[in-house]
Amino acid sequence: MQIRILGDIMAEEEIKKISLAVIRRLPKYHKCLGELLRNNVEKVSSQELGQMLGFTASQVRQDLNNFGEFGQQGYGYNVEQLYNEVAKILGLHTEHKMVIIGAGNLGQALANYKDFESHGFKIIAMFDINPRLTGLRIHGVPVYDLEELSYVINENNVDIAIIAVPKENAQQVADVLSGTIIKGIWNFAPIEIKVPPHIMVENVHLIDSLFTLSYKINENKLMERLIKQKSKRFEVKEKIIKKLP
Amino acid sequence: MQIRILGDIMAEEEIKKISLAVIRRLPKYHKCLGELLRNNVEKVSSQELGQMLGFTASQVRQDLNNFGEFGQQGYGYNVEQLYNEVAKILGLHTEHKMVIIGAGNLGQALANYKDFESHGFKIIAMFDINPRLTGLRIHGVPVYDLEELSYVINENNVDIAIIAVPKENAQQVADVLSGTIIKGIWNFAPIEIKVPPHIMVENVHLIDSLFTLSYKINENKLMERLIKQKSKRFEVKEKIIKKLP
Repeated sequence: MQIRILGDIMAEEEIKKISLAVIRRLPKYHKCLGELLRNNVEKVSSQELGQMLGFTASQVRQDLNNFGEFGQQGYGYNVEQLYNEVAKILGLHTEHKMVIIGAGNLGQALANYKDFESHGFKIIAMFDINPRLTGLRIHGVPVYDLEELSYVINENNVDIAIIAVPKENAQQVADVLSGTIIKGIWNFAPIEIKVPPHIMVENVHLIDSLFTLSYKINENKLMERLIKQKSKRFEVKEKIIKKLP
Repeated sequence: MQIRILGDIMAEEEIKKISLAVIRRLPKYHKCLGELLRNNVEKVSSQELGQMLGFTASQVRQDLNNFGEFGQQGYGYNVEQLYNEVAKILGLHTEHKMVIIGAGNLGQALANYKDFESHGFKIIAMFDINPRLTGLRIHGVPVYDLEELSYVINENNVDIAIIAVPKENAQQVADVLSGTIIKGIWNFAPIEIKVPPHIMVENVHLIDSLFTLSYKINENKLMERLIKQKSKRFEVKEKIIKKLP
């Protein structure tokens, strides 16, 4: 009995240790396995999966071992089974209902994004304070007044809210959402919002992605600079070595 | 002389080894150091930086060591110096000129994003094939016909192009861009584009971010499942142990 309790504790600790880096790689596994499945591939080795994804075979095994014991030594992974398992881990086996708060350019762009629905994420409503927008349907999605936010979420079992309002209004929206049955917030406002701990938040910080691109562009120049530094250090070492008796 | 050549090789190898994970953390350092600078803080220890960023002190030292020898033992980091160094690494010390291809909802949303210009990323033009949009100014940015893309980029020393067209047209746009002086592409189309190796690409795969949110929401359920699995394994172990002589 005590062993079982210990088991529970270990499992909980274990899952908490799964780093965000692994989780962020899972959508890539999901996509790749989906393609294999559509091509009627039945089994795949960690090496093959790794090659397709640009990871090492041991990375693949390590990533997937985090979530249980998939695959068999010598056989590899059953594609369909692994695809379904990864989908389950990502919570893609059930439909998610979403609402968008903010029917401006960004909100409209997101409402028009076809890939969400094909993956089981259905946008059922948008909200705005602009009376010229409320009452309209944009890309097939009805726009309601922001006043109706809590009611629509709770009535329709919505589990994800997308914040697409200016950063000045984001916390205010988050406060309203905190009083609803919402489970997750996808935040596009460039600001950290505060919500109760049972509500999960995923921030889309576009500027960080732009900085990464800027870094990549800058990398060549940077390399030249580092090489110069390095050479200098070696010159100094050379001199010291020459002076040694 | 040979040692110096060895130095060059090492520096190049070294920089290539810097993982994307480190680079993706750098914007966070940049933001944090910028805030310290604005508050007239002169020096900061790796421990203090780590606390602000949610990393360990050793993680901070390891991250920054990748790019040279900043900081001094016992003293910590000079905030202004480190801020400037991180900005240089991220390529933020020079202004970047950007264009947006696609003046639909997404393109317009990006043109309206104020944080880009305040970080030195200036959007100078948008492009579209829709004749109702060309000739207009949207959020202050002129919209040109797509035909003029190469000319405008080369004439104005634009270094970053943002692809905000439907995925069906993304590769076609990338092909045109490949013939220009562009250095980097920020790709919002949910498709992998092919470009020559000297052009850097950063993809914004929104669906991956949504999957991560879905994972977080699903984590509690997942934990229950894992605990059950774990308990089962321990039950089996328990039984085996009981059967042992």
